[in-house]
Amino acid sequence: MKSSGPISYADAGVDISAADRSKDKIKLLARRTFNKNVLSEIGSFGGLFGLDLSKFPDPVLVSSADGVGTKLKLAFLTGRHSTIGEDLVNHCVNDIAVLGAEPLFFLDYLGTGKLEPHVFTEIIKGFARACAENNCALIGGETAQMPGFYQAGEYDVSGTIVGVVEKSRMLNGQKTVKRGDVVIGIESSGLHTNGYSLARKVLFEKMRLKPNEIGDELLRVHKNYQPLLAKIPSGIIKGLAHITGGGLIDNLPRILPANCDAVIETKSWRVPRIFQILQENGDVDRQEMYQVFNMGIGMAAVVSKSNTQRAMQILKAKRIGQIEFGTGTVRLKF
Amino acid sequence: MKSSGPISYADAGVDISAADRSKDKIKLLARRTFNKNVLSEIGSFGGLFGLDLSKFPDPVLVSSADGVGTKLKLAFLTGRHSTIGEDLVNHCVNDIAVLGAEPLFFLDYLGTGKLEPHVFTEIIKGFARACAENNCALIGGETAQMPGFYQAGEYDVSGTIVGVVEKSRMLNGQKTVKRGDVVIGIESSGLHTNGYSLARKVLFEKMRLKPNEIGDELLRVHKNYQPLLAKIPSGIIKGLAHITGGGLIDNLPRILPANCDAVIETKSWRVPRIFQILQENGDVDRQEMYQVFNMGIGMAAVVSKSNTQRAMQILKAKRIGQIEFGTGTVRLKF
Repeated sequence: MKSSGPISYADAGVDISAADRSKDKIKLLARRTFNKNVLSEIGSFGGLFGLDLSKFPDPVLVSSADGVGTKLKLAFLTGRHSTIGEDLVNHCVNDIAVLGAEPLFFLDYLGTGKLEPHVFTEIIKGFARACAENNCALIGGETAQMPGFYQAGEYDVSGTIVGVVEKSRMLNGQKTVKRGDVVIGIESSGLHTNGYSLARKVLFEKMRLKPNEIGDELLRVHKNYQPLLAKIPSGIIKGLAHITGGGLIDNLPRILPANCDAVIETKSWRVPRIFQILQENGDVDRQEMYQVFNMGIGMAAVVSKSNTQRAMQILKAKRIGQIEFGTGTVRLKF
Repeated sequence: MKSSGPISYADAGVDISAADRSKDKIKLLARRTFNKNVLSEIGSFGGLFGLDLSKFPDPVLVSSADGVGTKLKLAFLTGRHSTIGEDLVNHCVNDIAVLGAEPLFFLDYLGTGKLEPHVFTEIIKGFARACAENNCALIGGETAQMPGFYQAGEYDVSGTIVGVVEKSRMLNGQKTVKRGDVVIGIESSGLHTNGYSLARKVLFEKMRLKPNEIGDELLRVHKNYQPLLAKIPSGIIKGLAHITGGGLIDNLPRILPANCDAVIETKSWRVPRIFQILQENGDVDRQEMYQVFNMGIGMAAVVSKSNTQRAMQILKAKRIGQIEFGTGTVRLKF
């Protein structure tokens, strides 16, 4: 420990010029995501976004904040940081899509011990690519160099999305879902961004797999359902649930009226192999599997019986259950 | 390391029921910040906020994401977590206030290894209190339990604010600031949320102070300038700079036209004692001090000569410099 002589910010572990170079890189990447509504530059104190009232005469802003959880450990273990941004943006896009909203802009937060320029660029490129794909402006963010907070080569990311929905088109399953309605499910691409602490414990500690043996499977990008959902004519879907942390068990109740249950027929779809591996090798309780993982269903929709066929066709969805009298909970049938 | 027997999510370090209890607490605290524009409950997939177009016929959304940096270490060292939320919310409120915006809603992110219910509650209470004080709805957020990411008892927080300004009232110093204008400064309450890595190095490593000897000074809440700024009649202020990371040197240029410099007379205000202590004991370069710390000025405004007296009176500000021909940079006069 140095105890005499002048101290600089760099001595304290904060490299301002590296941060400046990184900011320039962000500006360049973020600018590609801008559209005519963006009235500011990255680097201003705040992002400025003009709301187009011709499209939304009675606008409701829909926002969501999220992280990618310990999926990040997979990025650290495999050295692959390019898909984390997509995971996070897609997660956020899905979270507001279930309320009927389309994305306007996104802000990221990246906390790290020391900036690794190469890793940093990969992460931000991922954010920018995912934002561009979603017609969502990467309008701001914060990169924090916090010496002593994160382990070498590690970081945490989070992000906030803001979107908009015309008030009359907001989806609210709690008001519209009824007994006799049908639950349909759209498949996930893998674990998405949930259950990684448990998955790592089973795969790496118990099964002693090497990260690269299972990296492709575990790093699959969180699926973006917005393009599919945008195809459905308004009025067909009663409620949508993004199946994230808490699984079907905790997420479906968010769109259930207090006097309805969702009864899920777990045999109605093929649970992907990765979840079987986790369950068998971890000897994980069956009920808990459906509360930790999406089990192959990343998005669930409730539709009336008469709209079921049409909705399944457009969304490439399977019938996975139905709405019955109940108390606002999910009952799994095995 | 356990290598046989069933594995649960709790074994993997994630306590869902603690998370559920925490979510209930957040709901209760957040609800107190809600106003008639909030159309959702915390716990929905996204926060819903109706935009009041009677107040903003041509609305521009202004957003900013931030953290509180290594000021968090002070909270860890002193066990005082109640003011971190205010630090972050006030920081964000200031960042959009300098563009003329008022807050609408805020979303927080809290990353931690394991939830400490008591600490967690203190942090969220701080967020809720600060949001309520700013008439800003705490509309959403994410709490991530990430075993193995953070040290025991530690966490990181970040937040995103969204506000609104009527397009014709947006502040843009780069278009309006001119040679001959005056720079006035409003005092800070202390370090605010910047320079803590350097400050800790000087105070704890070099001076060997104990955290509690200097905790009060270092944990002073980041000042909220919005109430003061709201008193200024429109048209008087040409540009505002929130003096955060990068100090006067990096933040004032954000509101300077390319052909102007801000010349700052560093003798025009009394630099608070904490900054003198840091400079002297750390033997920190004088110029660097003004790039790492706010040096006692947390908000700077540019006004025309004729409006200077009035603005200084309303904002309780001091004249700290003037605008001269230049290249968009800050020149410090000692």
